[in-house]
Amino acid sequence: DRTIDLAVISGDGIGPEVVAQGLKVLTAVLPPDVALETHPYDLGAKRWHATGETLTDEELERLAGHDAILLGAIGDPGVPSGVLERGLLLKLRFAFDHFVNLRPSTLFPNTESPLAGRPEIDFVVVREGTEGPYVGNGGSIRKGTPHEVANEVSVNTAFGVERVVRDAFARAQARPRKKLTLVHKNNVLVHAGHLWKDTFDRVGREYPEVTTDYLHVDAATIFMVTDPARFDVIVTDNLFGDIITDLAAAVSGGIGLAASGNINPTRQFPSMFEPVHGSAPDIAGSGKADPTATVLSVALLLRHLGHEAEAARVEAAVTADLAERDAAPVRTTDEIGDALAARVAR
Amino acid sequence: DRTIDLAVISGDGIGPEVVAQGLKVLTAVLPPDVALETHPYDLGAKRWHATGETLTDEELERLAGHDAILLGAIGDPGVPSGVLERGLLLKLRFAFDHFVNLRPSTLFPNTESPLAGRPEIDFVVVREGTEGPYVGNGGSIRKGTPHEVANEVSVNTAFGVERVVRDAFARAQARPRKKLTLVHKNNVLVHAGHLWKDTFDRVGREYPEVTTDYLHVDAATIFMVTDPARFDVIVTDNLFGDIITDLAAAVSGGIGLAASGNINPTRQFPSMFEPVHGSAPDIAGSGKADPTATVLSVALLLRHLGHEAEAARVEAAVTADLAERDAAPVRTTDEIGDALAARVAR
Ligand SMILES: CC(C)[C@H](C(=O)O)[C@@H](O)C(=O)O
Ligand SMILES: CC(C)[C@H](C(=O)O)[C@@H](O)C(=O)O
Repeated sequence: DRTIDLAVISGDGIGPEVVAQGLKVLTAVLPPDVALETHPYDLGAKRWHATGETLTDEELERLAGHDAILLGAIGDPGVPSGVLERGLLLKLRFAFDHFVNLRPSTLFPNTESPLAGRPEIDFVVVREGTEGPYVGNGGSIRKGTPHEVANEVSVNTAFGVERVVRDAFARAQARPRKKLTLVHKNNVLVHAGHLWKDTFDRVGREYPEVTTDYLHVDAATIFMVTDPARFDVIVTDNLFGDIITDLAAAVSGGIGLAASGNINPTRQFPSMFEPVHGSAPDIAGSGKADPTATVLSVALLLRHLGHEAEAARVEAAVTADLAERDAAPVRTTDEIGDALAARVAR
Repeated sequence: DRTIDLAVISGDGIGPEVVAQGLKVLTAVLPPDVALETHPYDLGAKRWHATGETLTDEELERLAGHDAILLGAIGDPGVPSGVLERGLLLKLRFAFDHFVNLRPSTLFPNTESPLAGRPEIDFVVVREGTEGPYVGNGGSIRKGTPHEVANEVSVNTAFGVERVVRDAFARAQARPRKKLTLVHKNNVLVHAGHLWKDTFDRVGREYPEVTTDYLHVDAATIFMVTDPARFDVIVTDNLFGDIITDLAAAVSGGIGLAASGNINPTRQFPSMFEPVHGSAPDIAGSGKADPTATVLSVALLLRHLGHEAEAARVEAAVTADLAERDAAPVRTTDEIGDALAARVAR
């Protein structure tokens, strides 16, 4: 089948603007014999304000039938914290078993880094996506009283840890430096940490060419700002991955350039690709949003669907575009999308 | 009583070297009518290797009788991860109810920051010290099998959250900028997050002069590298505090300058002061360890015991010493201690 059947959740704020550019570039890069079918889904804050719904069972079922999902950004300040996160974003990651949350960090030419001396940065974080403190197994008793106790449970299974660790080793093996760092906090979270470290060491024996090391999450944040070049592939738990990938994005050109894939490598369910940034309501509609993170997420989507050459073309276009950006006048969202689409079409 | 009865846990690696300088400065700064009594405790990796003991009940009971504890660093690579952390360091924090883990970050003159442009950095993190995922309420079933499940439980109580939030508001109120930021992840850890946010908002109404804001922990790491000047006082949970204070130390001159106090503000039990850095076995005995973090921890100790003027003198000595450091030849641990002791004695 040479058709890509894509669900599109544009979402809120700058979401629709950046998704439009992602689709523009996707359309431009696809070879003539691959058709693109897009199916928009009206989900997010606007929908919730209008209907009180986050995601219906019927929508979830329909979404399951597509090849992949492209998501822009979800949320606005009017929605209580947690409603759309738990009811939509995390619901999709869990329902579609997106156990590999892939977040590459590259410091592209001519981008700004807050780090002095612009170190070389080129690593990828493989964040577990279906376990840890994200499972929603918490609760409170005596809520709102002086005797409230609120618990959150981090659940970690041999099955869940091993599959993501295997994925990370395979990715490390395929990269020139072949280095994999496990990030956890096994001196304090000893039970989960033991499972992660044991699994990491055991699977590692099957990859003798991969150099491994271990860092506590607190130490990992230090290296992220003092020596990010030391990282090649990082594998880590859902919450630690959330934290260090925002930091990674910040040091490598900013959250405006950070792409991510919520991937189910078994392809049993569609994978979902989204920029790491949020809906940025303050700049929505102004044409100031940088669509690059979405375009880079489209590259991850192409790679996941087996279009490696096209993925590489998109990434090369972004690199070239950024390299020439300091010479260019400030461009709108649309103009950046046009420029990238023109480059991949060449 | 004009005697400071101090328990000293020098520990391993560079611990004894930096503690010696801390005591040197403490002795030099105390007024003639305040005596210092030190009681060494042989605890840490060396002791564990020799006896298999981390901390006996008898020692814990004796420790409880001192005015305060000065700790150097604990651990060496030969001790399995978690043994000394859970059996000694965290045991002390929990036994002595150190619910305020105080970690100031200041970018001193002439220190190196990995951040371009050396932003102004002067904030303090109030990290909760007795709850969260640190409580040790985890466990595994079917350990070592493909069906293992390892859980970690974060426990948060109204009592525990409110007392540390109150402490943080009082600290913010006492500072010129009067700003307090709550760091959590209440869009995902909704139960614990709700308790924290609710408590924060409620206590905040008693402090109308304090400006408040809220950041998710992932976003907080971004600001830590792009705009650390935005922070004045931060209050956060035990694990988030662990992570962001290492990052804070890294951006403000490095872990070699970061001080901390594990404080029980009720004074029911002794508080414990320690540099944030570890035992650094690779440089132990070489005279290369910088004792400044320990000396700054001594300042926190002095302040906690009510010797504000002396605390300020120690901090001023460190600032002056660092300001002249780039002119000075590289000094040994001992020479830095001597220089600081001489300054505070003047
Ligand atoms: C919005 C939130 C639920 C999400 C997360 O915590 O995973 C976001 O921070 C991310 O990193 O994609
Ligand atoms: C050694 C470890 C238990 C400790 C912690 O996690 O609190 C350390 O990282 C710290 O920050 O003091």
